[in-house]
Amino acid sequence: MRLPRLDSAIPAAAWLKSYRGRDLSADLVAAVIVTIMLIPQSLAYAMLAGLPAEVGLYASILPLIAYAIFGSSRALAVGPVAVVSLMTAAAASRVAEPGSPEYVGAAIALAMLSGLMLVAMGLARLGFLANLLSHPVISGFITASGILIAASQLQHVLGIDAGGHTLVAIVTALAAHIGETNPYTLAIGAGATTFLFWVRTNLKPLLRDRLGISPFAADLLAKAGPVAAVVVTTSAVAIFDLGARGVDIVGSIPEGLPPVTAPPLDLDLWGSLATSALLISVIGFVESISVAQTLAAKKRQRVDANHELKGLGAANLAAAFSGGFPVTGGFSRSVVNFDAGAETPMAGVLTAVGIAATAVFLTPLFFYLPKATLAATIIVAVLSLVDLGAIKRTFVYSKPDFAAMAATILIVLGVGVEAGVVSGVGLSVALYLWRTSRPHMAIVGQVPGTEHFRNVDRHSVVTSEEVLSIRVDESLYFANARYLEDKIYDMIAERPELKHVVLQCSAVNLIDASALESLEAINERLHTAGVQFHLSEVKGPVMDRLQRAHFLEELTGKVFLSQRQAMAELDPDTVARAEGRRLERELHAV
Amino acid sequence: MRLPRLDSAIPAAAWLKSYRGRDLSADLVAAVIVTIMLIPQSLAYAMLAGLPAEVGLYASILPLIAYAIFGSSRALAVGPVAVVSLMTAAAASRVAEPGSPEYVGAAIALAMLSGLMLVAMGLARLGFLANLLSHPVISGFITASGILIAASQLQHVLGIDAGGHTLVAIVTALAAHIGETNPYTLAIGAGATTFLFWVRTNLKPLLRDRLGISPFAADLLAKAGPVAAVVVTTSAVAIFDLGARGVDIVGSIPEGLPPVTAPPLDLDLWGSLATSALLISVIGFVESISVAQTLAAKKRQRVDANHELKGLGAANLAAAFSGGFPVTGGFSRSVVNFDAGAETPMAGVLTAVGIAATAVFLTPLFFYLPKATLAATIIVAVLSLVDLGAIKRTFVYSKPDFAAMAATILIVLGVGVEAGVVSGVGLSVALYLWRTSRPHMAIVGQVPGTEHFRNVDRHSVVTSEEVLSIRVDESLYFANARYLEDKIYDMIAERPELKHVVLQCSAVNLIDASALESLEAINERLHTAGVQFHLSEVKGPVMDRLQRAHFLEELTGKVFLSQRQAMAELDPDTVARAEGRRLERELHAV
Repeated sequence: MRLPRLDSAIPAAAWLKSYRGRDLSADLVAAVIVTIMLIPQSLAYAMLAGLPAEVGLYASILPLIAYAIFGSSRALAVGPVAVVSLMTAAAASRVAEPGSPEYVGAAIALAMLSGLMLVAMGLARLGFLANLLSHPVISGFITASGILIAASQLQHVLGIDAGGHTLVAIVTALAAHIGETNPYTLAIGAGATTFLFWVRTNLKPLLRDRLGISPFAADLLAKAGPVAAVVVTTSAVAIFDLGARGVDIVGSIPEGLPPVTAPPLDLDLWGSLATSALLISVIGFVESISVAQTLAAKKRQRVDANHELKGLGAANLAAAFSGGFPVTGGFSRSVVNFDAGAETPMAGVLTAVGIAATAVFLTPLFFYLPKATLAATIIVAVLSLVDLGAIKRTFVYSKPDFAAMAATILIVLGVGVEAGVVSGVGLSVALYLWRTSRPHMAIVGQVPGTEHFRNVDRHSVVTSEEVLSIRVDESLYFANARYLEDKIYDMIAERPELKHVVLQCSAVNLIDASALESLEAINERLHTAGVQFHLSEVKGPVMDRLQRAHFLEELTGKVFLSQRQAMAELDPDTVARAEGRRLERELHAV
Repeated sequence: MRLPRLDSAIPAAAWLKSYRGRDLSADLVAAVIVTIMLIPQSLAYAMLAGLPAEVGLYASILPLIAYAIFGSSRALAVGPVAVVSLMTAAAASRVAEPGSPEYVGAAIALAMLSGLMLVAMGLARLGFLANLLSHPVISGFITASGILIAASQLQHVLGIDAGGHTLVAIVTALAAHIGETNPYTLAIGAGATTFLFWVRTNLKPLLRDRLGISPFAADLLAKAGPVAAVVVTTSAVAIFDLGARGVDIVGSIPEGLPPVTAPPLDLDLWGSLATSALLISVIGFVESISVAQTLAAKKRQRVDANHELKGLGAANLAAAFSGGFPVTGGFSRSVVNFDAGAETPMAGVLTAVGIAATAVFLTPLFFYLPKATLAATIIVAVLSLVDLGAIKRTFVYSKPDFAAMAATILIVLGVGVEAGVVSGVGLSVALYLWRTSRPHMAIVGQVPGTEHFRNVDRHSVVTSEEVLSIRVDESLYFANARYLEDKIYDMIAERPELKHVVLQCSAVNLIDASALESLEAINERLHTAGVQFHLSEVKGPVMDRLQRAHFLEELTGKVFLSQRQAMAELDPDTVARAEGRRLERELHAV
């Protein structure tokens, strides 16, 4: 009876058991569509990563099969994606010259390290770490990466040499070399870009509404846009011999299945790529899990974050050992896979077969494929990731979130992708700590005629001369412990007649060791000033913890179950006054 | 009328205006006592930092005057302290050979960088940053540093060469060289250590209780212990010519006032010391502000964190330009200064005069001072910082806090001081995020006969079939947004008959942009499942913010002022049932 354990270790065991004929036909249709989409994408993203075209194909074969076995999402389409390719280029070009064998080795090493890290994170159940990337940081990162990637591809559209890792570097290089623009390349690049934008925005409605083609077929035809662009421009280059006129072409791609490769055994190299591999892993995981969860939710299925880590880890290890580069679940491709009816990860296996067939039989067809066409497919794909509306929404809703987002965008564009994501995460965390380091604290009084206590600044309430009731609207922990002390000392300094301070803890979900020391200090300080210190409405788990410390024994006052109970015992007259008004009012109403 | 602005920029302007003769006599007494204490300490901490003895004296003159002008604490005694000296040694020895002029230059550069950073933090009002160091991390750091410093001084007590930056390195070196122990050095070192421990623990009670000396005089005599040790051992070395028998002595110290120095103008050096300078600044500031606040509280005075930053920054800049090394407010010296009656920072100025006189006239007296005696004063001083009780208390109270503390201690001892403090801070923050990333969520029902709603697992309450009420006990932000989604989906998956979900937000102090997106996703997902989504008891500031987003327009349900109001509208029958029982019970009681 080891099958259940196999099921949970290898998700494929579960869906394979109930796999049927009609699943296969659905998966086959999806696989054909995704393969058509993936062929130009895999070549294009390899180019974006600075790698030979065949590496893109290799990264789209074994990794897909590995993910189908170990991944938990049924619709995720794994393979090279734009942002991870950009990050691969940034990391690999720091340690090797683009175009050199060392550069390819660095890409393979990144895939291996990223695979190992993802598997380790999955085994250690660290899926929750992805939550450290806040939505505004992810959104800003994707938008800025999209802009950066689109800018980096303009050189191919113009047929000049103008790369760079920051927007400033790219724009400067473009400005310097724009005079060298090749008119044939520009014609192809601009034409392909315009055509692909038109396909994306206008073709589907046209096919559907004007020509009466079914929505599904219209969608399918629209997705084939890049293939059409590839066929037309490749034919044009071949027929008119535009390669001789300076149009950059893909050239010869080795035919055949992926080679068995191993990452270079170089610990120094691994060390210098480790941080980049970690960032690639985390960003890739976040992109992948987001789309996997969205798609799973539509079918009321569940995606397990720790299985996803292992599945993506396996895919990257497969990439490393078959001449590929880092991969993850792509957003648009997965949506297409899902919409085309993929029922199980078998669709991924069939896609891999399709790409393998391409690698074996079709690579000679890509000889005349102009790089400008690949650049056009990249530009059109990534500009759809740019979401300027999100920037505005975030600005309106929350300035700290906007600050984290803006920092991420500016640093991605101005310094680079890795610095951008690290700063974004750091700033998110810092701003959260800063927000909670100055918690909202209100002096409360009793709402006349009720047992409720509310902020004296917002409500007309009854307060006591001798008892100061303070509600703190935040968990008490190291970042705000000192602020709490300062604030309470300020409040009592203004009230010499005070005999009691009651801290209402209804919104306190945690009191950590630092805050406990601050409470002890407050208790002692109030004691020397002749003021008793009480707590009220302490939550169960917080109280359980306090009972393990000496604080409750040292506390000069009591812990009351409710704020009213505290006031009823410490200043019954004021409570009577507050609640007496009810009587008055009711008598009045009669 | 610019005086008020001068007052707030230069705190000295305030206390100088009302300075009187009796303040001067009080400050003078304190200054004499602190000077007696500071002379051996300044020499010892310079040795700990790997610097020539005179550097310790230089760091105890101008910095004290600078602090007196710009600092805000009235009792703080600034100068070299153990932990910062250890950190200086760790940082400087990474970029230069101890004993070389470059090493002294690095120490000066650290003082300058630290001074600039402190001033900048003060001007930017970043005093709250010190709160990121949680109490357990600080406590663990101080304890581990104390152990590390004491271990590092054993070589001087034994008269062997066995340094190192980790406990393992030091112990290994001690084990390897213990055979070379110099018996004369050991006699002096062990004798001085024993004597100083005895003075610390037994002398004061002896003087006070047996000999009837007044507590103040007894205290004073006990503080002079190190001076007595210096006098006796120096005389012994001089008389018996122990220097010739291998006892390491301080040797000749240049006579005179501090030279005017400038840090080496070397941007690479500054860059490689920047992180260390930042850590020195933060640790120094935390040590200083803690003691300053404790002492100020005793006299009901206030210390302003941002003024303190500027004051300590000025002190470090003064150190950099007068041949010193990083300084801060020392704990034990400040307590002595306070207890001896220091009324104003003038005590610091007078102490500086005392040390200056020492530098000009007394340095020849230290020629035969054995390093073993200085090591003994360091060991006795730092072992009093070791607080093993705090480790146990933290363990009992909170495992996450204990984890941060243990990590800090182990990494300080095993890797080094800087790595220790960085890991401690990182771990504190990570553990806090982890704690709040899985918030406590309770399904609530109405307590019969009341308007209160409580956790169904802890109380006997009335719940509805059609309305699920969930209370979330944490602010909603990026680290827990996804968890909230998952948890709510899990809860509704088990309840097919559900029509409404009410999220009770009484403990939600913040909803950030990530959490807002999660609420939008929950709203949409519940909508497709035919379930309405409501909020209740949303706090004022949270509501204000929500009104800036589109969420409230998209919300399928309502926002209720109270949980009872929500239930009364969504399922009046259940509320009637819950509140009807009161009647029943009351009737029953009759």
